Amino acid sequence: MLDAARQLGVYIESVCGGRGICGRCQIAAQEGHFAKHGISSTPENLSGVTEAENRYADKRILAPGRRLSCQALVQGDLVVDVPQDVQINRQIVRKRAETRHIERDPATHLCYVEVEEPDMEAPLGDADRLLNALVAEWHLDNPRIEFRLLPLVQKLLREGDWKVTCAVHDDGDGPLVTAIFPGFHNVACGIAVDIGSTTIAAHLSSLLSGRTLASAGAPNPQIRFGEDLMSRVSYVMMNPEGRGAMTKAVREAIGVLIAELVSGAGVTPEDVLEATFVGNPIMHHLFLGIDPTELGGAPFALAVSGAVSMPAREIGLPMNEGARVYVLPCIAGHVGADAAAVTLSEGPHRSDDITLVVDVGTNAEIVLGNKDKLVAASSPTGPAFEGAEISGGQRAAPGAIERVRIDPETLEPKIKVIGGDEWSNEEGFSKVAEDVGVTGICGSGIIEAVGEMYLAGIIDEDGVIDGRLAERSDRVQPTGRTFSYLLWAGDEAKKSQEIKILQTDIRAIQLAKAALYAGVRLLMDELGLEEVEAIKLAGAFGSYIDPKYAMVIGLIPDCRLDKVKGVGNAAGTGARMALLNRGHRREIEEVVRRIEKIETALEPRFQEHFVAAMAFPNKVHAFPHLSKEVTLPARKALAETGEDGRPRRRGGRRGAR
Amino acid sequence: MLDAARQLGVYIESVCGGRGICGRCQIAAQEGHFAKHGISSTPENLSGVTEAENRYADKRILAPGRRLSCQALVQGDLVVDVPQDVQINRQIVRKRAETRHIERDPATHLCYVEVEEPDMEAPLGDADRLLNALVAEWHLDNPRIEFRLLPLVQKLLREGDWKVTCAVHDDGDGPLVTAIFPGFHNVACGIAVDIGSTTIAAHLSSLLSGRTLASAGAPNPQIRFGEDLMSRVSYVMMNPEGRGAMTKAVREAIGVLIAELVSGAGVTPEDVLEATFVGNPIMHHLFLGIDPTELGGAPFALAVSGAVSMPAREIGLPMNEGARVYVLPCIAGHVGADAAAVTLSEGPHRSDDITLVVDVGTNAEIVLGNKDKLVAASSPTGPAFEGAEISGGQRAAPGAIERVRIDPETLEPKIKVIGGDEWSNEEGFSKVAEDVGVTGICGSGIIEAVGEMYLAGIIDEDGVIDGRLAERSDRVQPTGRTFSYLLWAGDEAKKSQEIKILQTDIRAIQLAKAALYAGVRLLMDELGLEEVEAIKLAGAFGSYIDPKYAMVIGLIPDCRLDKVKGVGNAAGTGARMALLNRGHRREIEEVVRRIEKIETALEPRFQEHFVAAMAFPNKVHAFPHLSKEVTLPARKALAETGEDGRPRRRGGRRGAR
Repeated sequence: MLDAARQLGVYIESVCGGRGICGRCQIAAQEGHFAKHGISSTPENLSGVTEAENRYADKRILAPGRRLSCQALVQGDLVVDVPQDVQINRQIVRKRAETRHIERDPATHLCYVEVEEPDMEAPLGDADRLLNALVAEWHLDNPRIEFRLLPLVQKLLREGDWKVTCAVHDDGDGPLVTAIFPGFHNVACGIAVDIGSTTIAAHLSSLLSGRTLASAGAPNPQIRFGEDLMSRVSYVMMNPEGRGAMTKAVREAIGVLIAELVSGAGVTPEDVLEATFVGNPIMHHLFLGIDPTELGGAPFALAVSGAVSMPAREIGLPMNEGARVYVLPCIAGHVGADAAAVTLSEGPHRSDDITLVVDVGTNAEIVLGNKDKLVAASSPTGPAFEGAEISGGQRAAPGAIERVRIDPETLEPKIKVIGGDEWSNEEGFSKVAEDVGVTGICGSGIIEAVGEMYLAGIIDEDGVIDGRLAERSDRVQPTGRTFSYLLWAGDEAKKSQEIKILQTDIRAIQLAKAALYAGVRLLMDELGLEEVEAIKLAGAFGSYIDPKYAMVIGLIPDCRLDKVKGVGNAAGTGARMALLNRGHRREIEEVVRRIEKIETALEPRFQEHFVAAMAFPNKVHAFPHLSKEVTLPARKALAETGEDGRPRRRGGRRGAR
Repeated sequence: MLDAARQLGVYIESVCGGRGICGRCQIAAQEGHFAKHGISSTPENLSGVTEAENRYADKRILAPGRRLSCQALVQGDLVVDVPQDVQINRQIVRKRAETRHIERDPATHLCYVEVEEPDMEAPLGDADRLLNALVAEWHLDNPRIEFRLLPLVQKLLREGDWKVTCAVHDDGDGPLVTAIFPGFHNVACGIAVDIGSTTIAAHLSSLLSGRTLASAGAPNPQIRFGEDLMSRVSYVMMNPEGRGAMTKAVREAIGVLIAELVSGAGVTPEDVLEATFVGNPIMHHLFLGIDPTELGGAPFALAVSGAVSMPAREIGLPMNEGARVYVLPCIAGHVGADAAAVTLSEGPHRSDDITLVVDVGTNAEIVLGNKDKLVAASSPTGPAFEGAEISGGQRAAPGAIERVRIDPETLEPKIKVIGGDEWSNEEGFSKVAEDVGVTGICGSGIIEAVGEMYLAGIIDEDGVIDGRLAERSDRVQPTGRTFSYLLWAGDEAKKSQEIKILQTDIRAIQLAKAALYAGVRLLMDELGLEEVEAIKLAGAFGSYIDPKYAMVIGLIPDCRLDKVKGVGNAAGTGARMALLNRGHRREIEEVVRRIEKIETALEPRFQEHFVAAMAFPNKVHAFPHLSKEVTLPARKALAETGEDGRPRRRGGRRGAR
């Protein structure tokens, strides 16, 4: 049955090479007449249960109706299910309860073999007989063995009594034995790592089941060399040892994360055979030990843009010495392997819909298009969306305001903080305020605050806080030569300070959203679009913001609201896809090659779009899809669109502001 | 013209990629009507001399009639010579003036490319653009770049003003950039090393011209751990750190040799891009860092028998960091990569003649056969042939007796020593004796001494010194319970001691030659042969002995004397062949796979042959080809052959002694 499945191109896992040991090749034969297939599938068409299956069922579990396909002989017409519910084949559970099934075809497989003992009459070397066994039992084409294993192969073969499990890596470059375990070995793991400038996130997955066994995160220790990307590049330029120090720091931090994941999941470092990495171009270069100086100025030349592979030991990671690292390709000097991973995860290239994928960070990395054509760019949004450069801003952490509503009549706000379920006008909030506090406002909170201020008429289309409202409400207060809005009055007893939205905060958000929107617009121009059919917002910020407010403030272009989705750590998902399936590696390599790259710095229209996008909501390209949702001021904006309800065409753009 | 040659499969070297810089692609067009080809080759059928050619001719030399094939355009029928006499294509000169032309097709080529500068509109990485240039200009199929080069590629490209020369390695595993030199680089070298248990010999060759630039040798420092192979294996078994210490010692010694060769030839370690290694199985394992313990006892299991490749940096050799090492395959547990190299060099598999190739050392490695079938074995000859275990024995060095003649009437000897041209009865010898001395007797000397003693009737067919001759000559002297022959009386004034051939010396030679002969016989049995058509004696010993005496004492089987040749350091030549032409690597890998291996220890007939071969000259299988050459005693032996002059068939073997 296993052979038949292989001939038909149906992937059934097998580690033990058809010996009935590993139990991974379970199938369930169906009974009855299948009109669709025009066949009758009867129990007699499958051979009887073998001794090996009974032995397996004794030791482990073989559910009724289940057979080991390596043991069952096809004797006639059959309809067969390859069950997905086998424990060892369980689907991947994403962090934050997102579930995604990733077809498994990892670059490293386990192959159990029984090797012939040495024979003076046919004096092949032990390693050569091992390779012959891999050819005979696993049909590998011209397998090779890693040089570093040659001094170990004799001991391992004798230790396993001539039975060993080989880790065989083949990522399109031919099968290579990268590790040997004496006897039957049934554990093979991989690590997928997203190296952010601020945070490193890592997932440990079973290469055999696809399951995520553990996840962990840690701050990127490079922060001590520079908070943002450009200051890290400067550090390298100013310090001869700077590049080496930052490379060492990030690799060590990843090493600690791996050790943590491995011990948490109850496996050993030797079980980790694959790793994939994503990150923005500067993180990518520093991780690989490449000087990022060229990325600090035009023409922003990457040292390497294609996918990079190497043995993990060459970069000193605490994994199996034969483990292989795969780093996803970068799209451009400002659009990194993280954007490639987000693209792989969200698949605009697999979609008919024109899809906008945005990964918001200090730079927003933007990919737009569908299966026919894709364009990509990066926009310098700055750190405002991450809560930096905002008077009361903070990172998304317990106590940070993340939801805001403002009553358009009274101008009174209500808020929610991370770590609490109640609104501030609800009964339970005082306990939340006591337990977690109200410590600041995070990126998604500031977006809602500004959006609600606009919808309540506190700020006008140009983002100016209307000082006249100070007469109507104490919340609007003069602050220097402008006005501010008091979002949270503070509570001296609980050491909670007041949190205000200042005019400068509004400006910071305006600059950031205009940069992002201008980048998106540039790509829409490139494809001749006025709206998009789906929007996917990746990253922590993108996952937490309410799409409605993103649209109200003009962060994203017009789109059906139900088609705007936060997609979580899509970069991490993309890294896991490349970890679990080498086909996804070829997929993203091919997609990155054909993505058309737009360098915003080179496009004069970027500045035009940027200036036009400063207003709330963008006057030139207003949002028909939003009109069903939002209140008066937005409708007022809509009045400026064409009579057909569509936004005005480009001809009307000049001087619109 | 260069393109046409490539299309026709004619190899013309080019480093500069057809830019008219390197001058390696010279050709000479012929003029006239060529009846054989049915074409008229006229000067007009080749385009005129280009500016690039004039520039080249100004700087270097372009002989009259020579053209650069990358510049010359084919405009009609042409007959073209690819000259072999171009300076840079000069043939290889072997050490000891042996010359052998090795067709060049090294695994590493130099490829000069001009790389596009970074472009924000097409933001490919620098490394990616470099690879694209290799595809466009050198038609490489899917080239890759070594990971370690990625941090260097930007600096090197800028240093070379976007012109670089890449070292591209492709040994059947796809093109890989292993080194990058800024600008145009025209030096690429390789090292071929023969690791003997006693001596390490290394040659530095240009990969571009094939020329041997320098040769050097050094004692194998492992000698301090054990004189012979088995004592080194014992050392590993007795000392936990023994393997590591011996591996380190041999690699360091090779490192020193490489440094010596490189500085002697005026190149740099960075210019060394390839290395090939040969050695017996234990030297092979210790060099590769593999514990040789399994080779110390049956079943004599090699850890690896196939060819081994790895980057030179993995074994810490002082070459270019990207240099690649290729170790030739081993044939069996006692028949190593040195025997494979000798086979490659002497090519019995390329010959119609049944050829016997013998590499004599402590073990004799024997290969027999022709293009249809090959068999191999190893015989434990012991160190007698190397002068060890012989009373007056010494290594082949100045002062060692290497030639002996004994007057059958007077029984007086005359000798020649290494370092002198005169026989001891000639006038100039006293000066030789004064200058270099007479210090002992080397392997080839002892063979001649024993052969001459037999021919002069001093020893009988069983090797017994005839004590009765003491009456006739002072040279034959009683020594304990046996007799000895005084070969050199010594000279007290010159501190030269007397050198005698003892009965035990004769026995030692008998044991060694019988072992070798028995091994050869076993292989002849395997092929059903009574004689061979050619004999090639490899190694220092094999090169110095006079084939006639080898045959007189029954070291080798019957063969036409003019077909018996010493072939020098054939292992080194084989290593150089694998260095300069990857086709030779595939050739020897294929040959080794199909060689039939005979384990002498498993064959009862080996003992039979061994016992029968103790006599001088072997009575059972006497030598018709020798009968024209040698004197009475040999003829007497011939009388015991069959009436047809052919040696007696196997049926007559039993009880023959």
